[in-house]
Amino acid sequence: MSPEQKYVVGVDLGGTNLRLGLANRDGAVVARWSCPTVGIRDPKLVVDLIRDGVDHLGRQASVPRRDIHSIGVGAPGITNVEAGVVIATSYLMGWRDVPLRDLLEAALGIPASVDNDVNVAAIGESWVGAAKGTRDFVFLAIGTGIGAGIVLDGRCFRGAGWTAGEVGYMLLPGTPDVPAGRGQPGQVEEMLGGNGVKSQWQLIWKGDATTLPKDLTATEIFDQALFGDSLAIGILRRCAHILAQLIYNIALVLNCPLFVLGGGVGMHSGLRDETQRLLDQWGTRVQPRLALSSLGTDAQLMGAIRLALDIGQSQTAHPD
Amino acid sequence: MSPEQKYVVGVDLGGTNLRLGLANRDGAVVARWSCPTVGIRDPKLVVDLIRDGVDHLGRQASVPRRDIHSIGVGAPGITNVEAGVVIATSYLMGWRDVPLRDLLEAALGIPASVDNDVNVAAIGESWVGAAKGTRDFVFLAIGTGIGAGIVLDGRCFRGAGWTAGEVGYMLLPGTPDVPAGRGQPGQVEEMLGGNGVKSQWQLIWKGDATTLPKDLTATEIFDQALFGDSLAIGILRRCAHILAQLIYNIALVLNCPLFVLGGGVGMHSGLRDETQRLLDQWGTRVQPRLALSSLGTDAQLMGAIRLALDIGQSQTAHPD
Repeated sequence: MSPEQKYVVGVDLGGTNLRLGLANRDGAVVARWSCPTVGIRDPKLVVDLIRDGVDHLGRQASVPRRDIHSIGVGAPGITNVEAGVVIATSYLMGWRDVPLRDLLEAALGIPASVDNDVNVAAIGESWVGAAKGTRDFVFLAIGTGIGAGIVLDGRCFRGAGWTAGEVGYMLLPGTPDVPAGRGQPGQVEEMLGGNGVKSQWQLIWKGDATTLPKDLTATEIFDQALFGDSLAIGILRRCAHILAQLIYNIALVLNCPLFVLGGGVGMHSGLRDETQRLLDQWGTRVQPRLALSSLGTDAQLMGAIRLALDIGQSQTAHPD
Repeated sequence: MSPEQKYVVGVDLGGTNLRLGLANRDGAVVARWSCPTVGIRDPKLVVDLIRDGVDHLGRQASVPRRDIHSIGVGAPGITNVEAGVVIATSYLMGWRDVPLRDLLEAALGIPASVDNDVNVAAIGESWVGAAKGTRDFVFLAIGTGIGAGIVLDGRCFRGAGWTAGEVGYMLLPGTPDVPAGRGQPGQVEEMLGGNGVKSQWQLIWKGDATTLPKDLTATEIFDQALFGDSLAIGILRRCAHILAQLIYNIALVLNCPLFVLGGGVGMHSGLRDETQRLLDQWGTRVQPRLALSSLGTDAQLMGAIRLALDIGQSQTAHPD
């Protein structure tokens, strides 16, 4: 970063929202901008939106474009970090082999770096969040889908084909004994993802067994479990059991001492507490500590800012 | 390694046998020695045996002790490679916090390096075996017990507490849904380990359903499956299904393209073929290739030789 280039942009690109942050060299966010992305699939339109956002941020903070060093993006799909290419996203965006880094660099005239959103969130938590100072940990994002960002020896581990951490598809006791088919949600997602938890609730819901409505979100169900609803307690316990199994299996492979739980479902303290209790009860073979994401919905944004700051540093996968 | 020090010793230390090899700088084994270790638990006696073995090797190959640069050991338990301490072995040896590296260096007067036996076997396969040239792979040892040696980006990954790869305890569809208790065999070991396969056979064996005897080893059962015995075919298919689930789960976490199968049970080609068929059939999310160990019972010995050669090199965890 040259002396006059004092700022970077971080981008959290999701299937429903685009969020941008302008940050200084210390990672302090000095301006924010966001817009919906529902229905927008064309990569060129997404890049146009990002360019608009960068312009907005500059005006908002009175920072000229020439003072912006670089941009980092967390993308919702499998991403080849070396090539800067989003290999595949879910059906929402339907991207295949989109050279997002090149598109951004051409549109903005500054270096760009692109990574998978869950990896980027893990990088954020590692830098300024719940995993700060921990060299080995797993960030588990549990929302509609489930995925893991793996940090080993202080570096994000992405796997030979850029798909490390696809743990929403893990086979566990109680799941079908062959993997979910192509285009299907993973087995763990079916049980522990936001829609899976809702479906479980609707399946066991009976008007004479609870005073609660049939239509509740996963976090509302967990909340009601903490308030003492016995049906909801059953769901929370089942989800915690599945999450404990998932974490136990990952910990057997990686021997990671810390799991950071993020995402709309994963960040519920009731789920964390019950899962930790089970893991502690299961004994000494692996004893991971579970922490809630401390950055919450900003984990990806902060990780993307870190990606941008790393451009030109020796540790980056994409030195400019 | 100084110019006159032309040799190293590799040690495969097991619960039933101790095997030593004297190798030159290129890893060519010029002399071998072995002896039983059944009933020998005292670490000092084991070190005495190793010292005897080194003397034997020297005489056998007419190599004076001063020409031996270093010694590497694969130990049957959780090992702190940095400290050279065997933290815990199975009940057979019952070791706890044995400073094996220091004991060997004191007894032999040359630098020593110690690692877990499965990790050492993975290093052997990586160096001169079935994983040569592959930067990311998992070595799966399937014998009485089951464990994984994980190589990521060309380096053995051992985990924050030195227990990465304890996959014999993984929770899978069909296993109990809470982990095995302390001191118990792992759930996967119960089904896929040598004794587990034998027990399955004895459980389903009926004199009028097969012409085979009730007392067969795991590999004999797999052999008979290939010869067409329908009971044995059932066992082989069940084992392959469990192994495919185990590999699938590990591959989801690590995105490793290659699994090398070793150990008495794991090296059966019938098991490999049926497991590969299942993984191929399960589709495209992860598609690991399964290879049989090409070093077989020498995998640990060759890995131990590599450990010894690495002492004093920059990549070793224990520079002298």
